[in-house]
Amino acid sequence: MCVCVCVCVCVGGGGCLGGRTSNRFLLSSIDGVISLLIRSCSSKMADLWQNAMDHAVALARRAGEVVREALQDDRKVMTKSSSVDLVTQTDQKVEQLIIQSVKEKFPTHSFIGEESVAAGEPCDLTNAPTWIIDPIDGTTNFVHAFPFVAVSIGFSVNKQMEFGVVYSCLEDKMYTARRGNGAFCNGVPLQVSDQEDIKQSIITTEFGSSRDPEAVEKIFSSLRSILCIPVHGVRGAGTAAINMCHVASGCVEAYYEIGIHVWDIAAGSLVVSEAGGVLMDVEGGAVDLMSRRVVAANSKTIAERIVKEIDNLSLWDDKKTFSVTM
Amino acid sequence: MCVCVCVCVCVGGGGCLGGRTSNRFLLSSIDGVISLLIRSCSSKMADLWQNAMDHAVALARRAGEVVREALQDDRKVMTKSSSVDLVTQTDQKVEQLIIQSVKEKFPTHSFIGEESVAAGEPCDLTNAPTWIIDPIDGTTNFVHAFPFVAVSIGFSVNKQMEFGVVYSCLEDKMYTARRGNGAFCNGVPLQVSDQEDIKQSIITTEFGSSRDPEAVEKIFSSLRSILCIPVHGVRGAGTAAINMCHVASGCVEAYYEIGIHVWDIAAGSLVVSEAGGVLMDVEGGAVDLMSRRVVAANSKTIAERIVKEIDNLSLWDDKKTFSVTM
Repeated sequence: MCVCVCVCVCVGGGGCLGGRTSNRFLLSSIDGVISLLIRSCSSKMADLWQNAMDHAVALARRAGEVVREALQDDRKVMTKSSSVDLVTQTDQKVEQLIIQSVKEKFPTHSFIGEESVAAGEPCDLTNAPTWIIDPIDGTTNFVHAFPFVAVSIGFSVNKQMEFGVVYSCLEDKMYTARRGNGAFCNGVPLQVSDQEDIKQSIITTEFGSSRDPEAVEKIFSSLRSILCIPVHGVRGAGTAAINMCHVASGCVEAYYEIGIHVWDIAAGSLVVSEAGGVLMDVEGGAVDLMSRRVVAANSKTIAERIVKEIDNLSLWDDKKTFSVTM
Repeated sequence: MCVCVCVCVCVGGGGCLGGRTSNRFLLSSIDGVISLLIRSCSSKMADLWQNAMDHAVALARRAGEVVREALQDDRKVMTKSSSVDLVTQTDQKVEQLIIQSVKEKFPTHSFIGEESVAAGEPCDLTNAPTWIIDPIDGTTNFVHAFPFVAVSIGFSVNKQMEFGVVYSCLEDKMYTARRGNGAFCNGVPLQVSDQEDIKQSIITTEFGSSRDPEAVEKIFSSLRSILCIPVHGVRGAGTAAINMCHVASGCVEAYYEIGIHVWDIAAGSLVVSEAGGVLMDVEGGAVDLMSRRVVAANSKTIAERIVKEIDNLSLWDDKKTFSVTM
């Protein structure tokens, strides 16, 4: 819509030159003006998303406070049987905090949120500006106060990630990425590791929540193959978002997982790519963030080496509409 | 020696009462004076170890600075092939820093240090006051700047742990424990989790450095059994010392590993027990910190449940002289 308006204005501007110019000059001028106005228009769009990103950062920080307060106050009175309630209540509270605030500021935007989807909302990604929210990534860590708990907010337009914000609440680390403008942790630029030798690498993954013997065996099969390449080590923070931020930070070379959701990895995926990393499907090729599987690595070489070792699981998609090339 | 001196003084003191008192009163008085002097003497001993502990804390903090400087400065110029050199150099530098300083302050004390043993020093634990040092616990993490890197300093007298100091350098968390006086993180008291249901627990372990197929299969076998109890999750910080501090902090319920050394776990073991946790051998019974295997848990119940699932590996001991009941 914005581009159409620009073109109309440009043509009008070109018309003012009238018969004093050749067609070639006229066309050249029109092209120049169109280009300028598109750049201006893009700049305004960029500003708009930058405002949205600034809002996301503020919301993530506020959400982090809620998470920390819940751990300090509610966990003291939590009984064994109420741990699930604590998760649900805090998850819902944080997601509502984010969605309500965004709705007030950006009333036309769409949402995909873990808790909303759990409550029956559709998990569709359209071309609309869409906030993809995981209010607490690492819920098991949250229940136990294990140090890695993240608020993850990704934002896509035309199915392309525009910004990603991952706030590691207990570490007080704010990871941010704006498309084309790099990735940062607390304002310090991030750069993936330059290690191209898998044998000198740390790889991260998770065991997931399924305890189905067949699924566990496939997870262990991939893990054993990767460990015995051999690699330096295997780690897992217990959250996809922070695992991806660790790739972006250069302290691990790759992260892979099957079974995650789009809200776990949307924000982190841009943090990785803006830090110079690559995203890949577990069978190779472009990643589909709705496909519930991802390899995020410092380089194509390492990603492809990981792909070779993964024993793929046939899991359902969130919805196959979100092919991302970053 | 100190107790002998006390007794001599006491007997002398009792003698001053002369014939004015009955034998019973005399003996009672002697007992009382002996008791008082032993308490006084014990108090002085306690002060002595407290001084040593204060020194250990200062040294751990200084060592942490060296580790952080190495990561900031040397890692920038580190090539792929030189990563092992960086580890060795920093490990040795930190261990020498600690040992030299302790030798100046406590010239009669003994040492067991990872680097010293690697250089051919014996790995014997005697009754002498002994500093058990891991200059960098989590060397793989160190090379990659993964957030968990620890300086570990344990101190034993008569083969009993007197204090333990674990400094998580990159998190700036100083874990301390003095026998009988509790465990702390940055001065805040630690308490293990009160979770007694293994199914509501997080367990930590490591894959170790061996890539021998049989060893890896045994590690995976135990891990699969524990994961499928099922437990809430399995994590691993990449350092035994910090894994133990996580048990002490209550954010995980248990840690187990086979293949670690006494310098990895000496300090952490006291942090766990002083936070209310228990230590156990992987086959049950009292732990032997020289046996290269340990279960550290929040409770006997959880420790025994872990023991049931461990596929034991027959590994050599550091030296079987160090049975610890804490």
